[in-house]
Amino acid sequence: MKFQQLKQEVCQANRSLAEAGLVVLTWGNVSGVDRQAGVMAIKPSGISYDQLQPKDIVVLSLETSKVIDGNFRASSDTPTHLLLYQKLPSVGGIIHTHSTYATCWAQAQRQIPCLGTTHADHFHGPVPLTRQLKPEEIASDYEHNTAKVIIEYLSAEEANPEQVPAVLVPQHGPFVWGNSPVAALENAIALEEIARMALYAVLLNPQAQQLPQALLDKHFNRKHGSNAYYGQED
Amino acid sequence: MKFQQLKQEVCQANRSLAEAGLVVLTWGNVSGVDRQAGVMAIKPSGISYDQLQPKDIVVLSLETSKVIDGNFRASSDTPTHLLLYQKLPSVGGIIHTHSTYATCWAQAQRQIPCLGTTHADHFHGPVPLTRQLKPEEIASDYEHNTAKVIIEYLSAEEANPEQVPAVLVPQHGPFVWGNSPVAALENAIALEEIARMALYAVLLNPQAQQLPQALLDKHFNRKHGSNAYYGQED
Amino acid sequence: MKFQQLKQEVCQANRSLAEAGLVVLTWGNVSGVDRQAGVMAIKPSGISYDQLQPKDIVVLSLETSKVIDGNFRASSDTPTHLLLYQKLPSVGGIIHTHSTYATCWAQAQRQIPCLGTTHADHFHGPVPLTRQLKPEEIASDYEHNTAKVIIEYLSAEEANPEQVPAVLVPQHGPFVWGNSPVAALENAIALEEIARMALYAVLLNPQAQQLPQALLDKHFNRKHGSNAYYGQED
Amino acid sequence: MKFQQLKQEVCQANRSLAEAGLVVLTWGNVSGVDRQAGVMAIKPSGISYDQLQPKDIVVLSLETSKVIDGNFRASSDTPTHLLLYQKLPSVGGIIHTHSTYATCWAQAQRQIPCLGTTHADHFHGPVPLTRQLKPEEIASDYEHNTAKVIIEYLSAEEANPEQVPAVLVPQHGPFVWGNSPVAALENAIALEEIARMALYAVLLNPQAQQLPQALLDKHFNRKHGSNAYYGQED
Repeated sequence: MKFQQLKQEVCQANRSLAEAGLVVLTWGNVSGVDRQAGVMAIKPSGISYDQLQPKDIVVLSLETSKVIDGNFRASSDTPTHLLLYQKLPSVGGIIHTHSTYATCWAQAQRQIPCLGTTHADHFHGPVPLTRQLKPEEIASDYEHNTAKVIIEYLSAEEANPEQVPAVLVPQHGPFVWGNSPVAALENAIALEEIARMALYAVLLNPQAQQLPQALLDKHFNRKHGSNAYYGQED
Repeated sequence: MKFQQLKQEVCQANRSLAEAGLVVLTWGNVSGVDRQAGVMAIKPSGISYDQLQPKDIVVLSLETSKVIDGNFRASSDTPTHLLLYQKLPSVGGIIHTHSTYATCWAQAQRQIPCLGTTHADHFHGPVPLTRQLKPEEIASDYEHNTAKVIIEYLSAEEANPEQVPAVLVPQHGPFVWGNSPVAALENAIALEEIARMALYAVLLNPQAQQLPQALLDKHFNRKHGSNAYYGQED
Repeated sequence: MKFQQLKQEVCQANRSLAEAGLVVLTWGNVSGVDRQAGVMAIKPSGISYDQLQPKDIVVLSLETSKVIDGNFRASSDTPTHLLLYQKLPSVGGIIHTHSTYATCWAQAQRQIPCLGTTHADHFHGPVPLTRQLKPEEIASDYEHNTAKVIIEYLSAEEANPEQVPAVLVPQHGPFVWGNSPVAALENAIALEEIARMALYAVLLNPQAQQLPQALLDKHFNRKHGSNAYYGQED
Repeated sequence: MKFQQLKQEVCQANRSLAEAGLVVLTWGNVSGVDRQAGVMAIKPSGISYDQLQPKDIVVLSLETSKVIDGNFRASSDTPTHLLLYQKLPSVGGIIHTHSTYATCWAQAQRQIPCLGTTHADHFHGPVPLTRQLKPEEIASDYEHNTAKVIIEYLSAEEANPEQVPAVLVPQHGPFVWGNSPVAALENAIALEEIARMALYAVLLNPQAQQLPQALLDKHFNRKHGSNAYYGQED
C-alpha cells in the first residue's frame, strides 16, 4: 500500500477522535501530512469511524490539491485542510470537529478566555475567534475560504500556530492542529475540556479573570519549548 | 413472519435509540411505514428496548388505523404516528422521545434557534414549537390531537417536513422524522446534540445570533438536495 | 436463608441503583418491606454495591424497630426508612440517594416544578420540599426526625404518597418510594431525569410555566390509576 | 522490589483516579508516604494511567527531597507533594487533579460553599481558596511555592487538614489529601461531585445558604471522629 504509514496514522487518529467522545455521527475529521512526499491524507466523507481502515484514507497532492490515491470521496472539508497545510509549514496534523463545548463558544461568538493553568498547559493565550465569512466567501469555495480566514487571522495577529494550536470559526466550530495527527488529537481533547471548564467558570463568575502573564508563561513553557520539564526526556 | 423487513427495521431502530442515549426507562418509540403495503409498524408499549424482538413489533393499517398484526398493545403514542403518516406522504419513519436537551427546550417553551452549522447540516432553520393543545384536545383523542397540532403548524407555515424534520410540542418533547426509521434516528441524534449545544451557547451569550441565510443554505444544501457533496455517491 | 425473597429484591435494587448512575461512592440505599412478616430489609452501611449479596442485607422488625436478622450494621439512614414504613402503609420500597440533579434542587431549597409531561408521567404535581429540621431535631434522633418532617409535610398537605412518590429534604436530598423496591427504583430514576430537565429548562426560561391541570392529569392517569392505558395489561 | 507495598498502593490509586473519571490525558497524580521509611512515592511525569506499573513509581526522601528509587522522572508537581508531607504530619496520601468541576470553582476564584449534607459528610466547611502566587513565587520554585501558599493558608486559618482535606489554588485546581492514597482518592471523588452539585445549586439559587452549624457538625461527625456511626465497625 502506498503512503502506508501516513494512512495508518490518519486512520488511527480518526478512530481515536470518536473514542475520545469528540464526534457525534460523522461530524469530524483528522488529516496528516507527509512534507517529504508532498502529500496530505484525510478521512473519506461520511464514513463511520469504527469501520474506517487505512486503505480507505484519501491522499492528495499538496502542490496540485488533486487526489492521487484512494477509492472514496475525501472529506468535504478537504480544501480547508489543504490550504492550512500549504500556508502553515510547521503543522503536521489537522482536526476539525463539532465537539460540544468548543462549538458552543463558536456559536456564542466568543473566544475562549484563558482562565486556568489547564488551558495554559496547552494554549499560550485565549483560543481566538476568526471573523465571519462574507456571503461571497460562502457562496463559492466555501471550505477553501474557511482556511483563508484562519490564515488571515494568524497573519494579522502575527500569531505563532505552535503557541495556540486552535481557532474557532464563528457559528461553526474548532479547527485544531499539531505537529502530527496524534499531537493534533491531544490538542483537540485538551481544547474540548478547557472549553467545558471555561463555560462552567463563567457561569460561576461572569467576571472571571484571565491568567496573569507570569502564570500563563510558566505553565505553557513547563510543557513546551526548550526548557520544558514535564513528561519524560526523549 | 409477515412484514418481516419492516419489523426488523423498526425493532433495530428502537434498540439503537436506547443505545444512542436518547431514552430513559421506556420513554421513546420509533415507527416505520410501508406505503406499498399501506401499514405502519411501531414499538409495543412499556417494553424494554434490550428485550425487543422483531416479532414484538405491532403493525397497523394506515387506512383503518386498526392493528392487523402483533401480540402486544401498541405504544400509547400510536395515534400520533398514524396521523403524521397519513398527512405527510414523504415521511418513512417517526420517532418520539423525551431526550434530555430537546425536551428542556420544549419545557422552556422556546423553539431551538439555528445557532451553528451543525444545526444547519440537519435542519434548515429553527426547530419550531407548535401551539399548546387546548383542554378539550387533551381530554379526548389526546395522542391524535398531538399530531393534529403538528400538522396544523406545518400547514400554517407552509413548512416542508423534509427541510426541518422535527418539531417540539410545548411542555412535552420532540417528534422527529425522516424518510426511513434509520434516517429518523439520525435526525433524533442530531436534534439532541444541537439542542445541547444551543443551551450552552445561549448561556454564554443570551443574544447569540442565528445563522445568516447564506451559511444556513450552504450547510443544509451541502448535505441535502440535488447538489449535495457530503458523503459518498450512492 | 430467612426472608430470602425480600433480601434478594432489596439486594438487586441496591445494585441496580448504582448501575443506574444514581450513587457516587456509597451515597444511597434501598429498602423493602414485607407487611405480612412485619419486617423491613435494608442495605448495610458503607458496603460497596458491586460486592453486595442477599445475605448481607439487614432485616428489622417494623414493630420493635430492632434488627432481627443480618451480620452487618444497617444503613445509618435506617430510622428514616422505618418510620416511613410505619406511617405510610401503601409504601413497599424506599430509596434515599444524593443523586446529582435531585440533590441540587434540595440544595437550592426549591421544589421541582412540574414543567413537562415526563414529570407528569411519574409525579402528579411538583416534587415538594419539606421544612428544615430544627437544631434539636438534628441533635438527637436525627434520622428518625428526618422521616418525621416528611410525614408532617404529607399530613399537612393531605398528600397521597402514591400520587407524588418523592420529597426533597432541604440541603440534603431526595427520599423516593413505590409499592416495591423496583417501583421505587423506577421513581428514583425518573426523579433524577426530571430534576435534570427542569434545571436546564429554568436556565433557558426562568419563568417556565408548570403544566396546566388537564395535561398533568392526562399524563399521570395515562400511566396510573384505573383507566391507565400505558404498558401491557397485567 | 524496594518499597513494594507503597509503590503498589500509589500505582493503584493513580489507575483508580483515571477510572473514576477525574483526569483527562495525564492531568493528575497521586502520591503516598511511608513515614517510618521517611519516603514518599509518586506517579512519573506524563505516563498514561492504564500503562502504569508499580515499578514505574518514583520514590523520594522526605528529608533530602532527592529521588532514591525509580527509573522515570517524577511528576512535575513533586515539590508540591513533598512540602505538604513535610509540613502536614497527619497526611498519608495526596492528589492533584484538574478535575472538571473542582477546577471550574478554582477558575471562578470562588471557594466551594457547603450547600448540602453530601458536602458535610466529607468536608467540615467550605472547600477554601488559597491566595494567588506572586510573580516571584511563580518565576522560581513554582511547585514548591504552590505548597507554601497552601500551608500558609492552613496556618493562618488554624485549619485542621483532617477536617477539610482539600483546597483550591486559584486559576489552577484542587489539591486533596487523606490518611492514605485510597482515602485521598475517596476525598477527590467526593470533592468533584460536591463541586458539581454546588455549581448546579447556585445556578438554581444564587443565594443558596450554607448548612447551619448543627447540620454541618451532625453529618461530618456521623462519618468521622470518635462517635462516628456510619459504615461497619473496624
